Amino acid sequence: MTSKNNPGHYFEDFHLGQELRHATPRTITTGDVSLYTALYGPRFAVQSSAEFARAIGFRDAPVDDLLVFHMVFGKTVPDVSLNAVANLGYAGGVFGVPVYAGDTVATVSKVIGLKENSNGKTGVVYVNSVGRNQHGEMVVDYNRWVMVHKKNPDAPAPEPCLPDLPSVVQPDALNVPVGLDLAGYDCDLAGSPHFWDDYAVGEKIDHVDGMTIEEAEHQLATRLYQNTAKVHFDQVNANRGRFGKRLIYGGHVMSLARALSFNGLGNAFKILAINAGSHANPAFAGNTVFAWSEILDKFAIPGRDDVGAMRVRLVAMRDRAAADFALRDDAGKYDSAVLLDFDHIILIPKRP
Amino acid sequence: MTSKNNPGHYFEDFHLGQELRHATPRTITTGDVSLYTALYGPRFAVQSSAEFARAIGFRDAPVDDLLVFHMVFGKTVPDVSLNAVANLGYAGGVFGVPVYAGDTVATVSKVIGLKENSNGKTGVVYVNSVGRNQHGEMVVDYNRWVMVHKKNPDAPAPEPCLPDLPSVVQPDALNVPVGLDLAGYDCDLAGSPHFWDDYAVGEKIDHVDGMTIEEAEHQLATRLYQNTAKVHFDQVNANRGRFGKRLIYGGHVMSLARALSFNGLGNAFKILAINAGSHANPAFAGNTVFAWSEILDKFAIPGRDDVGAMRVRLVAMRDRAAADFALRDDAGKYDSAVLLDFDHIILIPKRP
Amino acid sequence: MTSKNNPGHYFEDFHLGQELRHATPRTITTGDVSLYTALYGPRFAVQSSAEFARAIGFRDAPVDDLLVFHMVFGKTVPDVSLNAVANLGYAGGVFGVPVYAGDTVATVSKVIGLKENSNGKTGVVYVNSVGRNQHGEMVVDYNRWVMVHKKNPDAPAPEPCLPDLPSVVQPDALNVPVGLDLAGYDCDLAGSPHFWDDYAVGEKIDHVDGMTIEEAEHQLATRLYQNTAKVHFDQVNANRGRFGKRLIYGGHVMSLARALSFNGLGNAFKILAINAGSHANPAFAGNTVFAWSEILDKFAIPGRDDVGAMRVRLVAMRDRAAADFALRDDAGKYDSAVLLDFDHIILIPKRP
Repeated sequence: MTSKNNPGHYFEDFHLGQELRHATPRTITTGDVSLYTALYGPRFAVQSSAEFARAIGFRDAPVDDLLVFHMVFGKTVPDVSLNAVANLGYAGGVFGVPVYAGDTVATVSKVIGLKENSNGKTGVVYVNSVGRNQHGEMVVDYNRWVMVHKKNPDAPAPEPCLPDLPSVVQPDALNVPVGLDLAGYDCDLAGSPHFWDDYAVGEKIDHVDGMTIEEAEHQLATRLYQNTAKVHFDQVNANRGRFGKRLIYGGHVMSLARALSFNGLGNAFKILAINAGSHANPAFAGNTVFAWSEILDKFAIPGRDDVGAMRVRLVAMRDRAAADFALRDDAGKYDSAVLLDFDHIILIPKRP
Repeated sequence: MTSKNNPGHYFEDFHLGQELRHATPRTITTGDVSLYTALYGPRFAVQSSAEFARAIGFRDAPVDDLLVFHMVFGKTVPDVSLNAVANLGYAGGVFGVPVYAGDTVATVSKVIGLKENSNGKTGVVYVNSVGRNQHGEMVVDYNRWVMVHKKNPDAPAPEPCLPDLPSVVQPDALNVPVGLDLAGYDCDLAGSPHFWDDYAVGEKIDHVDGMTIEEAEHQLATRLYQNTAKVHFDQVNANRGRFGKRLIYGGHVMSLARALSFNGLGNAFKILAINAGSHANPAFAGNTVFAWSEILDKFAIPGRDDVGAMRVRLVAMRDRAAADFALRDDAGKYDSAVLLDFDHIILIPKRP
Repeated sequence: MTSKNNPGHYFEDFHLGQELRHATPRTITTGDVSLYTALYGPRFAVQSSAEFARAIGFRDAPVDDLLVFHMVFGKTVPDVSLNAVANLGYAGGVFGVPVYAGDTVATVSKVIGLKENSNGKTGVVYVNSVGRNQHGEMVVDYNRWVMVHKKNPDAPAPEPCLPDLPSVVQPDALNVPVGLDLAGYDCDLAGSPHFWDDYAVGEKIDHVDGMTIEEAEHQLATRLYQNTAKVHFDQVNANRGRFGKRLIYGGHVMSLARALSFNGLGNAFKILAINAGSHANPAFAGNTVFAWSEILDKFAIPGRDDVGAMRVRLVAMRDRAAADFALRDDAGKYDSAVLLDFDHIILIPKRP
């Protein structure tokens, strides 16, 4: 009798070019959207109001980009990171066609890199994961790499292969929603008077507000995404672990920080790309999350004079206000209060 | 470079007649309704069952009146009460056309009164806030007044102006849903055998059940309403404050008490008006809420012999059963267990 | 003036053949489904993806069977078990037509058995409860028995009458969804390579994962089901009780165990029947739930060669991994770590 539960993949189970058709396609509904709002409190009008969204060319209120990301990410966990030691990084993430309530997203990953660590006990797996809607259209496409245990330390190391990943997604890879027309954009209803034109490269923004995370909240979120990583849910195992606590899914902090960023970036209604992301320190229930942003770059969107793009570093802090924009010490090490350093590209209207 | 985050309005930023078009219009969905049910456990059949609602003339299950109220209230916070010291009162609130899942509500407030306090540091702002659906129809219209900090104590005081607000909403201002026909009302399915005829003015009802509030619950609720008041979410700031705890949004207690009131007022399926409301004491996670009601008045609805109205005082208590109907001491001070004193008008079928 | 709140039925209020039309019919929505996913994290593809469901003959993603069960069960509480001492058992439960988002379920119970206990203070009430959709089609039909307080110990005992209940639901009583066609079943997307053929009678499966329950979670769930049993919500009363804690609704543990069972029974996408269920020990917030299953029997579905049925014992444990399959001691007493012993019949594809 074979064991029926899923042991997950170990490092030696991955091979270059391997395709992983992930389980549990997901119809995303207004129920998911409401929970997302209740979990993080986002206030971007485009995602909040079907009327507002239609006024600028969407056919309905699109689903929050990070909700789509988490739904896709969650599906990769049983196949990619069930035996992971750490989630090491993201690169080259782009969002595709908008997802609307009722769409069904399915996810496929491909192994694009492998490198055993010198200790012979773990290795790094690079995967490209693509979520597609029921029409086969890409909704999100990103790369991440994780450190995974070997099951058998004697298993031979694969030929090392590191993928060529961009440090920043290039403008021609960005997908502006088809039909987007900013003529109907209402700043009062959007809640911010600040346009692309008003931000300067190097500018830092304190998002001011803080949100304390409860165990029930991050567990509800992580289950909503059908993310099965044990560390988020099981206190009995946590009691034997390094922290003695359940770890909060890194994406939960991402979404909290993004929701907080409304207060200062209220017109940045869409994420176009994810350049990089570091979960600098683990987050636990009881932590209060603050956030700040730095405008790293500004650039035009080819063919558009009504919207522009900005590369933004979004930093989440725990238990410490963001007013001093803490990030790294002189040696380059992340401040112990930094939870997340998220390098992404957002879409924002230009001043009409 | 101007600061990008929203500092909120201070007392001196308001002027009489000022119109505030609030941000973040909101499409209310069945997802919001499910969360509302999960947060409070309401059991009124009209809001719970589309079939039941249609049998009495609604086109679908209408959204709970208080959910609509909270959605509208939440939108006013960034513009009205971000720098508030206290929410002082409500008056003259009426509900308009029913809201159905899929409707989008946008909110506009008007400053109708201003009075600086004698300390020169704060003032009272009166606003009339109106939520409208995507057709421009009024869904809720109410007045509230809040005490707001001055930013600059030297800013000159405005001419004091107190609005003329009704202590009780008059019958001709009440909106009974168009098409309502109680012929199809089924008492068994509604869960109560008690009609308008069965209640007496002065009668007090112990709603018996108690509900303990968790931090995650009130935070989920308050974010669902996109209410951004910092005191509800940020334990780091709370640690420096008067209570050392996060404060629960007063509307959360309102909705809990309303849901508890089903046990004794099960046929009171609709709130027509809000006459007044006092958050007598702050509520915190860990408090167990009990509720009682007093029938303050009964009156006919012009032109209807199938439904009547009752003016009801709904009182929420913390950590103490409601059987003794505690309210105020001999000096008129609220009992320390009283969280909410809510004077409202409900619609209830007459005995056929 | 009669008391307006619902005192519930006491043992002497029940009589054989009595019909109870329960209050609060419920339109089940995608909002409820999302909350269910967030509360338990189920990953069965049929309920998660409308596309997957349609590919095998459903018209949409059906609502999880246990969500339907809880919605129906919750409605029986105010009439059946408000004064219950204990929920003693279940038998002869079958699921009927699938429930889809938008359907409205109403519940009627019939008293099918009564037996006063020898102490003269309590008695056992047997009810058959049937949930039907808006077309009058049965969605779930089950029997349960509860021990209920007498209000007046001097009330005469009824003639004892014990219903004839099956220990196992027979194959001809099972309802396979009309139109189900497994030709389109995709094992990768379903997330399990194991078919009916691969399981052996007597086989035990450790579902491995653990989930720690928070107060907010079980309260949200139980209110979502509009289950009003006081013991789940009221810490003030709990402080005076035997445990000093709020008790978790037994169905919450059922759903957690069922969701955990995906890891080992990932193709068992539908519950056909509930043979029996024991809440062996009370569950409290802070408990971490683990689960294991035992295949008790396998049998063919009349007229189908693409799907088969398995009778499965699903056991939920608290604060202890399920690897040793603990159940009862030598004297037949449940292990103190066992929360639930749930005997049910599931539907699972045969190997094509």
